[in-house]
Amino acid sequence: MNELPNMFPTDDPDWVKDMHADHYLQSWSPQGNRPRVITGAQGSWFWDSDGKRYLDFQSQLVNANLGHQHPKIVQAIKDQADKLCYIGPAMGSDVRSELAALMVDITPSDITSTFFTTGGAAANEMAVRLARHYTGRHKIIARYRSYHGATGGTLSLTGDPRHHLTRADMPGVVRMLDPYLYRLPTGHTDPANCPVAKGGPHLEELLMYEDPNTVAAVILEPVVGTNGIIVPPDGYMQSIRETCSKYGILLIADEVMAGFGRTGKWFAVDHWGVTPDILTSAKGINSGYVPLGTMSVTTEIHDWLRTRALPGGLTYAGHPLACASGVAAIRAMQDEDTLTHATKMGHLLRAELSKLAERHPSVGDIRGLGMFNGIELVKDRTTKEPLVPFAAKGEAAKPMSDMMAFAMNEGLYLSFFSNVIRLTPPLNISEEDLLHGLSILDRTLEIADAAR
Amino acid sequence: MNELPNMFPTDDPDWVKDMHADHYLQSWSPQGNRPRVITGAQGSWFWDSDGKRYLDFQSQLVNANLGHQHPKIVQAIKDQADKLCYIGPAMGSDVRSELAALMVDITPSDITSTFFTTGGAAANEMAVRLARHYTGRHKIIARYRSYHGATGGTLSLTGDPRHHLTRADMPGVVRMLDPYLYRLPTGHTDPANCPVAKGGPHLEELLMYEDPNTVAAVILEPVVGTNGIIVPPDGYMQSIRETCSKYGILLIADEVMAGFGRTGKWFAVDHWGVTPDILTSAKGINSGYVPLGTMSVTTEIHDWLRTRALPGGLTYAGHPLACASGVAAIRAMQDEDTLTHATKMGHLLRAELSKLAERHPSVGDIRGLGMFNGIELVKDRTTKEPLVPFAAKGEAAKPMSDMMAFAMNEGLYLSFFSNVIRLTPPLNISEEDLLHGLSILDRTLEIADAAR
Ligand SMILES: Cc1ncc(COP(=O)(O)O)c(C=O)c1O
Ligand SMILES: Cc1ncc(COP(=O)(O)O)c(C=O)c1O
Repeated sequence: MNELPNMFPTDDPDWVKDMHADHYLQSWSPQGNRPRVITGAQGSWFWDSDGKRYLDFQSQLVNANLGHQHPKIVQAIKDQADKLCYIGPAMGSDVRSELAALMVDITPSDITSTFFTTGGAAANEMAVRLARHYTGRHKIIARYRSYHGATGGTLSLTGDPRHHLTRADMPGVVRMLDPYLYRLPTGHTDPANCPVAKGGPHLEELLMYEDPNTVAAVILEPVVGTNGIIVPPDGYMQSIRETCSKYGILLIADEVMAGFGRTGKWFAVDHWGVTPDILTSAKGINSGYVPLGTMSVTTEIHDWLRTRALPGGLTYAGHPLACASGVAAIRAMQDEDTLTHATKMGHLLRAELSKLAERHPSVGDIRGLGMFNGIELVKDRTTKEPLVPFAAKGEAAKPMSDMMAFAMNEGLYLSFFSNVIRLTPPLNISEEDLLHGLSILDRTLEIADAAR
Repeated sequence: MNELPNMFPTDDPDWVKDMHADHYLQSWSPQGNRPRVITGAQGSWFWDSDGKRYLDFQSQLVNANLGHQHPKIVQAIKDQADKLCYIGPAMGSDVRSELAALMVDITPSDITSTFFTTGGAAANEMAVRLARHYTGRHKIIARYRSYHGATGGTLSLTGDPRHHLTRADMPGVVRMLDPYLYRLPTGHTDPANCPVAKGGPHLEELLMYEDPNTVAAVILEPVVGTNGIIVPPDGYMQSIRETCSKYGILLIADEVMAGFGRTGKWFAVDHWGVTPDILTSAKGINSGYVPLGTMSVTTEIHDWLRTRALPGGLTYAGHPLACASGVAAIRAMQDEDTLTHATKMGHLLRAELSKLAERHPSVGDIRGLGMFNGIELVKDRTTKEPLVPFAAKGEAAKPMSDMMAFAMNEGLYLSFFSNVIRLTPPLNISEEDLLHGLSILDRTLEIADAAR
């Protein structure tokens, strides 16, 4: 056995950066960068080893719905750590059953049973495989403006440019267009007469060519997250639901980003009274404090599974520490009336953005639901030419990366996708912090104006 | 917002069982069972709501390498929970860098960089996609006696009967046979002259047909876990390594189950001095207390990634709480000299199993390395007819399930695959507990003897 070094200089930020650059592999990026070292966080703020503080307008990867270090979630993790960190997924566990019971209460009423994973991708993998077994069909319809995860199956379902990276697509994925009102499909100008924006008619047309009897499921983000915060028009989700039901196709709602209060309701589908057959979540369920995801199904599917094995599993399914943090987070959202606050802050945010739009000609569109918001930047409001091209990177995305860098320097943490800035602060952010962030955003947008 | 019930009767075992049966989806099984409710665990033992205690001869899903509730890991989780539960994967973090640095020290010396996931499947997904990008080739060679996870890609790579469940295989998987000395491939009787048991010659033959220039990687468990604890003969891993190197094919060692001291060394490949290009792990890295997995690569691959984006990522990559638990577990294994103890207990275990074999004619083979051991049961030692058929379930597997039930009743937690009982206690089990478990196993084997 090698002797390991007894101590590393972990409180030396330079050492932390060196190790990060040379020995830690970072998601989706070239390696070797020396990052900011984050030493702490509380509520809507985090700070680095230089003592600089940042207002988290992204909730990290849109997971810290209750902000950082929420005392009730932290306490629940510590209590469960003392009690029982892990027990195999087949065993009964109080906290596992409690989270399962809470999920029954907060998901749409036909949905009554949950499989607990370690994140969003694993939940979607299970959803898609289960849909195939349940229907006996193999095709899955997914949209372009989507991100569903980075495992083999979920990256194949993902529509954003990262799906070019699979190198071996899962068979059976069929693409559907998005209800993207600001940019309707080529040739369309009127949302009220656009089959894609209506949902059902577009899906019907695809099914005519594909044969509905070969289609297991439609998977979609009820409100698109990563790919630019796209809220469908009222009627869209109902219409997709109806068409799916007509052909015995399952509807899978990927609520990994949209769920747990992000839109001001427990789940985005609640805005339209739509019940999917399968609902997946992660992120906001426990603000990401312990890796956790969910796949929930209707009673009908659960009953079907009483005599058939669930076609999947993982070592950390129903992880007790993760479940304990989920229970605490849901209870905290209830006790603190987080959904009401998120709805209110969302209205305030969009009202303030409208004012910004008056001052900044680069603002083409403002959209969102609850605390799930985006600003789409354009060179020209009439032509709607995007400020940077779709999926721009490096030099081509410079106006966007310049804005991020400027905002970060001013103490505001933002992120973007193509020409859209996503604004997804913690649901419990204070009005004061929200307005503070918007004042920095105001100055940040001057960069966009100048880059037109 | 619905009012949630303020309290559930979580300390009523009947309530826990009811919720589990009706609202919790259980991995790989039909739903609706009312399980034992586990209320606590310590060291090699766990107990249920009836106060009944069980000696954990499986380390749950072969993850609790340091047993249950190890005080140093628990303390590290609590400390990190107080400090910082989550920060995005791109940010610098002391504990993330510390675990990355420790991985450099314990993995084979050419391996210097690690991507942190939430479990084994996600780690293998990343490994396989990266191998395809790095080599520019698409095929992956995997073995039949293997389990690599339940995501789209990893279930396609898995060779055990669960891969029949994918419903949409990832393209490009090619099968290789296993170095299964007790049951050589049909027609072979002499391991020393069997190309499959040697490794390289069998792989060469496949490559002749497949074209090595289309093969990105060979993925294998250096010691097979779930599929029956299969230790390759000395020379096998070296021979596979050599053949891979000859053709520029990457070798991926899936050490999710075999790693972190399970075989008595940090990694199973250390027994043969073989360095894979990519090494994946999970489970034993932190005994499963927080979901965590790893994909580690050589300096060569890391350097290649300095100018190219890693083709994958996940929300909980490099999760701080998970990393903190990994640091604590590795430090504890070092401080407590766990590898030496595991090696010693492994020898004792196999010596005692040899004595059991003398008394029990159903014992066909005993095999293992360190604390990774299996007993293969047969109807007849000469014909080697298995006690139950390959992948037997339900009635066909009755002698096996009867044994599990008997042992559980006696307070010993065992599991099986086909006709193999796997014996994988915590690495730090006491000699006394080990012998106690073996005495129950002795009585359990009478069921196998009678079922011949
Ligand atoms: C809508 C959606 N689905 C799935 C995922 C994947 O989740 P994870 O990163 O936990 O695998 C994400 C992550 O951003 C997401 O936004
Ligand atoms: C060798 C091996 N690889 C991969 C996995 C999958 O790991 P996880 O269940 O954490 O996804 C397992 C789980 O048993 C395993 O034993």
